[in-house]
Amino acid sequence: MKKDDCIFCKIANGEIPSDTVYDDEHFRAILDLSPASKGHTLVLPKEHFDDALSADEMTVGEIFKTAAKIAAAVKKTMDCDGINIVQNNGEAAGQTVHHLHVHIIPRYSSEKEKIVTWVQHESEPAEQKDIAARIAAKLS
Amino acid sequence: MKKDDCIFCKIANGEIPSDTVYDDEHFRAILDLSPASKGHTLVLPKEHFDDALSADEMTVGEIFKTAAKIAAAVKKTMDCDGINIVQNNGEAAGQTVHHLHVHIIPRYSSEKEKIVTWVQHESEPAEQKDIAARIAAKLS
Repeated sequence: MKKDDCIFCKIANGEIPSDTVYDDEHFRAILDLSPASKGHTLVLPKEHFDDALSADEMTVGEIFKTAAKIAAAVKKTMDCDGINIVQNNGEAAGQTVHHLHVHIIPRYSSEKEKIVTWVQHESEPAEQKDIAARIAAKLS
Repeated sequence: MKKDDCIFCKIANGEIPSDTVYDDEHFRAILDLSPASKGHTLVLPKEHFDDALSADEMTVGEIFKTAAKIAAAVKKTMDCDGINIVQNNGEAAGQTVHHLHVHIIPRYSSEKEKIVTWVQHESEPAEQKDIAARIAAKLS
């Protein structure tokens, strides 16, 4: 199902023009209009899902398979040194458009900006064991 | 195939202990020992692939399906406000262990650090059209 007021539904379904790099029955991939780096690409499902946590398993598997295939083409085309595949769920995670999308971000060894990175914190063994047990309990 | 000198091969296959949150025939998910945030989880295939660009399609689809399922459990357990799903390919993209892995990073509205983020740059329409056409040509 498409959602009437969703701009990514309109772009994915070709109702709003975009710089499309890939298009099939279920997904469209486009260049990000405000890229983190040259060649920054987004993969959008044509059907509306808010994010990966609310999408069905098959869509999640297929969108990332599609993203990896496109990432290989982006890498060859842009001759970049690395690629981040990033998918944000929720505003607190930096998601700005609430239609599932996967970012393919080319990375260049020459770049100066620090992006898609984080500080590694020390962990406390007893707390880690407790967290792991609680997550595992939700998955068993 | 496992790779003899790969630490993530050893962890995924249970030869080195870890705080495991999930384990099946093909994948193991563990807490990151040096987390970006509390509950930071990694999904590792038991077979060795350097990254998502060199893995087979089925493994890529399945690891991200598994990651999304675990991300939902992490979100419920940690009561976080968002989740980043991140997969880095190559040192230039921040990959430090060259065994395919997917990061599940809980995000909290209260957090002060800027992580998994980037600056949005303006794009030039003619250049975007050229880049899109060149990527599309590699995918057709």
